[in-house]
Amino acid sequence: MRVLLALGGNAMTAPDGSATPAAQIEAIGTAMESVADLVARGHEVVLTHGNGPQVGNLLVKNELAARVVPPVPLDWCGAQTQGTIGFISLNALDAAFSRRGIDKRVTAIVTRTLIDADDEGFTKPTKPIGRYLDAEAAQQMIAYGQTWEDRGERGWRRVVASPDPQEILEVPTIRTLIESGHVVIAAGGGGIPVVRGEDGTLRGVEAVIDKDRSAALLAEALGVDALVIATDVDNAILDYGTDSARPIGRVSIVEMESYAAAGQFASGSMGPKVEAALRFARSGGRSIITSLHRIVEAIEDDFGTVIVAD
Amino acid sequence: MRVLLALGGNAMTAPDGSATPAAQIEAIGTAMESVADLVARGHEVVLTHGNGPQVGNLLVKNELAARVVPPVPLDWCGAQTQGTIGFISLNALDAAFSRRGIDKRVTAIVTRTLIDADDEGFTKPTKPIGRYLDAEAAQQMIAYGQTWEDRGERGWRRVVASPDPQEILEVPTIRTLIESGHVVIAAGGGGIPVVRGEDGTLRGVEAVIDKDRSAALLAEALGVDALVIATDVDNAILDYGTDSARPIGRVSIVEMESYAAAGQFASGSMGPKVEAALRFARSGGRSIITSLHRIVEAIEDDFGTVIVAD
Repeated sequence: MRVLLALGGNAMTAPDGSATPAAQIEAIGTAMESVADLVARGHEVVLTHGNGPQVGNLLVKNELAARVVPPVPLDWCGAQTQGTIGFISLNALDAAFSRRGIDKRVTAIVTRTLIDADDEGFTKPTKPIGRYLDAEAAQQMIAYGQTWEDRGERGWRRVVASPDPQEILEVPTIRTLIESGHVVIAAGGGGIPVVRGEDGTLRGVEAVIDKDRSAALLAEALGVDALVIATDVDNAILDYGTDSARPIGRVSIVEMESYAAAGQFASGSMGPKVEAALRFARSGGRSIITSLHRIVEAIEDDFGTVIVAD
Repeated sequence: MRVLLALGGNAMTAPDGSATPAAQIEAIGTAMESVADLVARGHEVVLTHGNGPQVGNLLVKNELAARVVPPVPLDWCGAQTQGTIGFISLNALDAAFSRRGIDKRVTAIVTRTLIDADDEGFTKPTKPIGRYLDAEAAQQMIAYGQTWEDRGERGWRRVVASPDPQEILEVPTIRTLIESGHVVIAAGGGGIPVVRGEDGTLRGVEAVIDKDRSAALLAEALGVDALVIATDVDNAILDYGTDSARPIGRVSIVEMESYAAAGQFASGSMGPKVEAALRFARSGGRSIITSLHRIVEAIEDDFGTVIVAD
């Protein structure tokens, strides 16, 4: 089967959330063992990944060095993390393949995601990112064209647009590489956000794209058999945090939509995953939300929360 | 013809050396116009590029944020610049193609370069990088495992290994993409340096790889017809800076070797380019050193300094 696997930030950092280089290398090493298990079963795999903690670190560097080195825009931070996470993943996956006697090439590509230049987030940004700063430090960043909001006691925080992805621009390249037998790492961090100008040319913009939304879009464009959104729990949970909490297994689109509409899934965590999974399922595919180390069972035995058309 | 084009740092920054995001976008935009001219003539092009000024900026950020965010190693900085320069080049080349009515895909890939783990530079690093620091700041970076040397009045400076590239690991992927009609951007900054451990696995190491040496290696591995090392002068110059200064045109390997042996080329600038050009010419290819905006004439009419087998 052809599978698009979306790895969350937790697959890229230590259990305590640490994103030191050593912690990232170790976490990605563990994650790639699961990916290699899936490839060892003969499946074609395209990988995508989050980059929240990594971009967080880059934003702090931008800010602390701003008096000496001009900050780079948020789209560049995304490009930087595609480089580093791609690099570490290449090494880790090569090693995991080698241990299993798998002879397969892995490629990480710089991936751009087209968004709407007229998205209202560009005039009224709402997505908070990075750490809180005091008013003086925030003013310095505002001078570089960023939008920061006074959040009261905790200080100021940067807000950016969080538009819907419209097109993963590197799809034809990804398809070429899959068809040549490559495992492809693409659209890291949801892809680098670009808009099309009036003259038709593309330019980067400062925005955050939800990586699961991009994964759903990419899964549809590539026509994969399954989209797996890997996280740190085996299933999405109904009535989470109550005595009647229970895991969701195989579920229809209609049923899952009703749970989502009833507010069953937290907006900052499971909510976006369910939304993305539903999106791909509506396009006719099979969407699975489960733990990274259960992905083989998920694909082959419908383990996890599996959303299907009926 | 199939051409490997190596762009120097000057193609990526403003004439005054500025490496702000805006300056990089403008400079790369200009550079990609020349690349598009070459593609418009029907040639197959693989692009590689330097990353010195960009890595310099990242090192400053590492250093100024070190008390808050752990510095990332030098190999990660290289990966970061492959992301950003790749991203900006994709946008610029797409735009330049569009203006010329060229329907061709561009892909930037994360590229690793294998080096020898026993290179003496790892025990006795000699290549200075980044800016000078005072003793206290240098000690802080030494605590992260870096090597810094006391350079007297100007302060302390970091030194790293600068090993010979042995293999560009992504060559099979690059070949697949070329054969599918893509323009490929690869091996930026000479490629991210990796060594092979005793168990056969690859890991990143802190080193600087000369991008022209990697370009020569890549040119040979891909079997290109010509390696073009693009710089800011039309030709390598004999007796540079004297009254008898004269440009070198078409020249044999033997003749060029004799000039190099006589110390005609500065070690920090033209020297490494000539060395890399000679390396590829010895493997049977045609090597050209010239200005970026003359590359079409260089390829088609032997403009510039052209090193050939006889």
